[in-house]
Amino acid sequence: MAGDEKVRKILVAVDEGEESLYALRWCLKNVISSKNTILVLLYAKPPRAVQTALDGTGYLFSSDILSTMEKYGSDVADRVMDKAKRICRDHHMINEVEGRVECGDPRDVICDMVEKLGVDVLVMGSHGYGWFKRAFLGSVSNYCAQNVKCPVLIVKKPKSNC
Amino acid sequence: MAGDEKVRKILVAVDEGEESLYALRWCLKNVISSKNTILVLLYAKPPRAVQTALDGTGYLFSSDILSTMEKYGSDVADRVMDKAKRICRDHHMINEVEGRVECGDPRDVICDMVEKLGVDVLVMGSHGYGWFKRAFLGSVSNYCAQNVKCPVLIVKKPKSNC
Repeated sequence: MAGDEKVRKILVAVDEGEESLYALRWCLKNVISSKNTILVLLYAKPPRAVQTALDGTGYLFSSDILSTMEKYGSDVADRVMDKAKRICRDHHMINEVEGRVECGDPRDVICDMVEKLGVDVLVMGSHGYGWFKRAFLGSVSNYCAQNVKCPVLIVKKPKSNC
Repeated sequence: MAGDEKVRKILVAVDEGEESLYALRWCLKNVISSKNTILVLLYAKPPRAVQTALDGTGYLFSSDILSTMEKYGSDVADRVMDKAKRICRDHHMINEVEGRVECGDPRDVICDMVEKLGVDVLVMGSHGYGWFKRAFLGSVSNYCAQNVKCPVLIVKKPKSNC
């Protein structure tokens, strides 16, 4: 970003897929050219209701299994956030990185956060949101591009690197 | 753009709507921070077959009317391109601006040109393509975001400025 001294808030939606981290790297390399940038990393953790629906057999999970799944979800969130923050650490232009993990449908989580924080640019991969996307069908990036008010940068991971 | 010396090719899809010119201005102000940038302005002119379909009465147009419409289409293309180039002229970072007018469905025209020119970033408004969009339904920006290989920046014009 260039052209003025205003602090820019860029939100990058990260998930467990490689594409969202590719989008983050691309953004760091190509978009951020001013120290006046606050980078927000956002991970949307699936809500418990969605985890129970995963079974698909009609059986309810025991509370033990539910808390194991809850723990697994939190571990994934931590791992994704750690990896994303490590990627940012190498970028000399970034002064401020803020990591956020929110629970819910990624479409709502992302759109709500963009509005709540007054984000200037939303950056995301095009396929993202792994099994969550497959569970819900439809593209998270398309939904967000249509529903947030700020500019949206959709970064696709080149196939040769997949 | 920042971080390396490679020449970056940015394609901005322009049309007769104000939103695409807003996207162009936003891109000039926020994205381009290096003189190593080639900016391509692309206008997709509706093909003749689409113009005849506009009538909707089943009557065929006479060749006089067709050439008048053809002329009108070219005038619109010229006006849009002039306006877009004037906007670029005020930007000190831009050394090279290339204007292109191509005939066809904007979705195909944009996606083909991105591939043909090896574009690094595609920039477009989110609603764009005026009556052409209404004739075809569906969002041009969604289609392009799904089908081009390069990163896509979709810029929405804030409602307060509409």
